[in-house]
Amino acid sequence: MSSKKLGAGVVRTDRLLMDGRTIRYYDTQGQSRDAVDQREAETQPQIGEMRLDALNNEWVVMAAHRQGRVFLPPKELNPLAPSRPGFLTEIPESDYEVVVFDNRSPSLRSPEKDVKIPNEIDFATPPIPAAGKCEVVCFTSNYEASFKDLSHHQIRTVLEAWRDRTAELSTFSYIEHIAPFENRGEEVGVTLSHPHGQIYAYPYLPPRTEKMLKVAEDHKTKTGRVLLDDLVTREIKDEVRVIARNADWVAFVPYAARYPFEIHVAPIRPVPDLAALDENACENFPAIAKEVLQRLDGVFDTKMAYIAAWHQAPVRTGRDVLRLHWQITSVRRAPGKLKYLAGSESAFGAFMMDLWPEQSAQQLRDVRI
Amino acid sequence: MSSKKLGAGVVRTDRLLMDGRTIRYYDTQGQSRDAVDQREAETQPQIGEMRLDALNNEWVVMAAHRQGRVFLPPKELNPLAPSRPGFLTEIPESDYEVVVFDNRSPSLRSPEKDVKIPNEIDFATPPIPAAGKCEVVCFTSNYEASFKDLSHHQIRTVLEAWRDRTAELSTFSYIEHIAPFENRGEEVGVTLSHPHGQIYAYPYLPPRTEKMLKVAEDHKTKTGRVLLDDLVTREIKDEVRVIARNADWVAFVPYAARYPFEIHVAPIRPVPDLAALDENACENFPAIAKEVLQRLDGVFDTKMAYIAAWHQAPVRTGRDVLRLHWQITSVRRAPGKLKYLAGSESAFGAFMMDLWPEQSAQQLRDVRI
Repeated sequence: MSSKKLGAGVVRTDRLLMDGRTIRYYDTQGQSRDAVDQREAETQPQIGEMRLDALNNEWVVMAAHRQGRVFLPPKELNPLAPSRPGFLTEIPESDYEVVVFDNRSPSLRSPEKDVKIPNEIDFATPPIPAAGKCEVVCFTSNYEASFKDLSHHQIRTVLEAWRDRTAELSTFSYIEHIAPFENRGEEVGVTLSHPHGQIYAYPYLPPRTEKMLKVAEDHKTKTGRVLLDDLVTREIKDEVRVIARNADWVAFVPYAARYPFEIHVAPIRPVPDLAALDENACENFPAIAKEVLQRLDGVFDTKMAYIAAWHQAPVRTGRDVLRLHWQITSVRRAPGKLKYLAGSESAFGAFMMDLWPEQSAQQLRDVRI
Repeated sequence: MSSKKLGAGVVRTDRLLMDGRTIRYYDTQGQSRDAVDQREAETQPQIGEMRLDALNNEWVVMAAHRQGRVFLPPKELNPLAPSRPGFLTEIPESDYEVVVFDNRSPSLRSPEKDVKIPNEIDFATPPIPAAGKCEVVCFTSNYEASFKDLSHHQIRTVLEAWRDRTAELSTFSYIEHIAPFENRGEEVGVTLSHPHGQIYAYPYLPPRTEKMLKVAEDHKTKTGRVLLDDLVTREIKDEVRVIARNADWVAFVPYAARYPFEIHVAPIRPVPDLAALDENACENFPAIAKEVLQRLDGVFDTKMAYIAAWHQAPVRTGRDVLRLHWQITSVRRAPGKLKYLAGSESAFGAFMMDLWPEQSAQQLRDVRI
């Protein structure tokens, strides 16, 4: 067991689960975290393998052990609840604020020995162990809550957990990119209703990050400027797509949104990643995060399915050209209607939007909160 | 009205619909196509606009007029049925074999005047009219049938229609890439149950095509060979992922499949596009197409949701390095379970596979047909 002080009075305490995985408690009330995982020890699944899709030069992770994982268990069998007598969960303690633990069925996991991905890859490149990390972030012990229902204090604690994980995972030799995200709603495949997110730490640059890096590098070469800065400046100037703003953050529907409801939340003072946010930006994040997600649920007065993903600069490259932003995308385009990624989007990557971004920004602004 | 003889005894006859759109009948029985569209004339929707997503340097098509389109109408209101007295549909005739007509709510449409996309693009590039074509391909007049239920003769007629559309659309100055595809199943967002596909003809290289082109060009430079040829050779040599084969085609689960059930069907003698297939390849396509889709439905003894997309070489570039293949992807990973494109796939483009490709190939081979 080890403890560590983070920002905003958050203390992290680490414990081990029955199979050797780590659970990290992020606390603000001086709790002691002594509970022992009483479940029978089980063997962790084998590491998966990464194969190169040579047609696209992209890695695909094979994690065949994941097929059997739990699927939408009822509340009584919620594995993200605190443990109680007679029902032992992933969290041994009887209560918690925020916890982050290693995924039981990870797509990516710590390798036995260091894994290096060759620089030169082609169709003959052999498979590579799927090294990396998959972590689960429980936002609250309250099963009924959503991210938008959390208090400012709770959101700040989640933010400290994300920042801590980003800082620590950045020191791992086999990790190249860190991606905290939340999937919300069965429409996007959520298998556990408990309010939680995930952190994927990849041993390679994910294709979309690689593309953004390339585009941002070209922009820097051509103009000397940082691309996201230019885009944020345009959004603030255009104003018509801005939906929320405070001293440190701005939230907008991007000019070329791909989803009926897509929101980017960017810090006004640009930083490469979560760990680099200053105290003011941390302090002012909860208000805008809550507002944006309340507006999203307010549009159709429903729990909107969404994916909320933190785009950060990669760990070892592009630190001067890629910038932190939070991308929230929702597939709901009207009550009872979803946008599907079908032929054009899925097979060709070509996005068709059924709504003007200005229209969806207006709908989001019109929500009374 | 004009008529034109194609391969395999197929004759194409063109007519105009009430709003000036073209419908093309592909017939093999010498039918005359005189029926006039008796519906009241309506105005075609305005052309949409393409905006550059500068963060990714990708075009996004804004087609806001599409929001109101019909959604899963009951069989009696099926707009892809032949017309009958008292019920006028998109197809004026009282029966048809295969028809292709311009989409009533197209994401991309013919521009008033020629549209040129600048070579140099950046975040200041203004929007451009969404020029292109969206066509609907009805595979049969039989509402109950699926592609896999079509006779060899019918599939051959569909193939001739695809080939004809590819050849003709390739002559349009504003079209750069032609993508015939079929979305099947409500799970992938199909809004009409009638067996049909679509053709999108883009004024730009779709992002996935652009990436494949870049990778194939690099491979050619490095090895002097065509990438898809090398991949097909490996699949035939490995054998373990091959699921069907005849003298002209091979069908396999690719080595680095991204979807629980993903099948590529490639001609043995490589060609850039559908129009370039020779007579033998055309003759032998229906058998393998039918077999592959029967196997897919057989795995879980259900109508599998799938996207079946033809990847072709672009119209004006990469003709010597990109090769025709038919990619079928299904999101069903088990009975009652779908694979969703959530955080990792959707936000970062990083695919995680829950099944070994060899496993899914085995399941597909095991289906009795």
